[in-house]
Amino acid sequence: MLDQKNNPYQQRIEKALESILPVATDHKSPNKLEEAMRYAVLDGGKRVRPLLVYATGEALGFSLGSLDKPAVAIELMHAYSLVHDDLPCMDDDELRRGKKTVHKAFDEATAVLTGDALQALAFEVLSQQDPDISLQNQLTMLNILAKVSGNSGMVQGQAIDLAAVGQVLTEQQLEKMHSHKTGALIRGSVLMASHCSSEERNKKLMDQRCALKNYAEAIGLAFQVRDDILDIQSDTETLGKQQGADIAADKPTYPSIMGMDKAKEKLFLLHQQAIDSVVNFGKEADLLRDIAAFIVKRIA
Amino acid sequence: MLDQKNNPYQQRIEKALESILPVATDHKSPNKLEEAMRYAVLDGGKRVRPLLVYATGEALGFSLGSLDKPAVAIELMHAYSLVHDDLPCMDDDELRRGKKTVHKAFDEATAVLTGDALQALAFEVLSQQDPDISLQNQLTMLNILAKVSGNSGMVQGQAIDLAAVGQVLTEQQLEKMHSHKTGALIRGSVLMASHCSSEERNKKLMDQRCALKNYAEAIGLAFQVRDDILDIQSDTETLGKQQGADIAADKPTYPSIMGMDKAKEKLFLLHQQAIDSVVNFGKEADLLRDIAAFIVKRIA
Repeated sequence: MLDQKNNPYQQRIEKALESILPVATDHKSPNKLEEAMRYAVLDGGKRVRPLLVYATGEALGFSLGSLDKPAVAIELMHAYSLVHDDLPCMDDDELRRGKKTVHKAFDEATAVLTGDALQALAFEVLSQQDPDISLQNQLTMLNILAKVSGNSGMVQGQAIDLAAVGQVLTEQQLEKMHSHKTGALIRGSVLMASHCSSEERNKKLMDQRCALKNYAEAIGLAFQVRDDILDIQSDTETLGKQQGADIAADKPTYPSIMGMDKAKEKLFLLHQQAIDSVVNFGKEADLLRDIAAFIVKRIA
Repeated sequence: MLDQKNNPYQQRIEKALESILPVATDHKSPNKLEEAMRYAVLDGGKRVRPLLVYATGEALGFSLGSLDKPAVAIELMHAYSLVHDDLPCMDDDELRRGKKTVHKAFDEATAVLTGDALQALAFEVLSQQDPDISLQNQLTMLNILAKVSGNSGMVQGQAIDLAAVGQVLTEQQLEKMHSHKTGALIRGSVLMASHCSSEERNKKLMDQRCALKNYAEAIGLAFQVRDDILDIQSDTETLGKQQGADIAADKPTYPSIMGMDKAKEKLFLLHQQAIDSVVNFGKEADLLRDIAAFIVKRIA
């Protein structure tokens, strides 16, 4: 189901992103910024983080409508990070999601500004009041989004990544890097979604949030292990970005540190850990289970 | 009073910024990101935007403690914008506040990440719950901060600015650019501060917010007119950045469009407009009046 581009969640997030992104209406003004923002976000991407938002909300019985804002916000944040990561002074990539990267399709200055504007837009969307969510929960979601994105989350991961080029890392150090770089937004998706209600705290909800956090940590790491394996085993066309880019850039990866067999074993164990985390949920958590399976088996 | 580095508001904001910025404690990890964040924010800057937050709060009788978070948030946002504006692909500046720009003191990738992390930190600070401010007001402040920073505010201004290089602009077009680029954060400072209370809306407060918005629009534009005049009349040492940089970059400025005399007259009228906006306030708005005077008379 998750492999199909036309699953209902995918359609829902595409529509929500489409409607939130600005359109340049003033034809006298330069509209490169709005164009580049749309280019960076629309028509591409697996939407794993929004799917996690919807899946978590479903597991907790929250309404789909209350989940749109965090789903959009986390995808905008992810899209901004890709635009900046691809810059010449960072990973210097030319391809992303099978298209030219933003600084190649537009220019470098526009790419910097596009990322900046997408980050601001993520917070703008999430700070619009929602009648289905308590103000307290909404503030908590904003705080989660800020924390997983900044210097104690994703940006820190990128800084560690840049400093790690050409270095020999231990498995523990590699895990720290990925826990920030990729793991943070994945945790953020699940944590934000677990606050999409008017209810703030009760014993059952607190237990469920804890279980979901464990799930998110396992799949966050699994996502990266699979990415590292794909960088070696897939091809550029399937990936939509340069195959072998990590190796070419002399970046440490799970297969390079622990060998391919051990990396695959680790992936299997993380999948198990994710499934075990949601063992107390019924079939309302099936989408979370599907996503875990998708993440460890995906081919791009 | 505002010319002195040791006025009580200045000391308050420096202390608040110092305590909110991260310190690299893990000596095994790269700490360039935290270092660069501190470098970009501390020990420099006139802190005009935080001063505006405190001055607006004073005019409305709000407690100083409730104003610290928006004061810090708006200065972090401003600092991030400077780091990105200075990048080689943007304005390519080497000096800022009399020090090397971040990409010169560190490197380009670190400068991109530093700006990204400072933006996230601004939202993180502002989303921490404050007992003196209603949840509704806090959410409103976050929404204001996002709007004035992103593609309908500051980042849009920067995009218009980049597209305007070498172009002939009308006064109206120049005003649109600055209303976004510099004006947005100045308006944001005043608007956010006017929500720093547990009270949300009453007739008097709504009228006061409207008056303060007019004040903010006038000084926001005045700030930029003064900046353009200084770019021609000051020297590099006093400015702390390259004198004549706008002219060298072939950027449109108020003096270049309307002549120096008309630009100075415009500055005088904007000052008058700002003072008139707060005519119904008593001496509790004196700091706002001082800031307006400072902005039109500053030498750097």
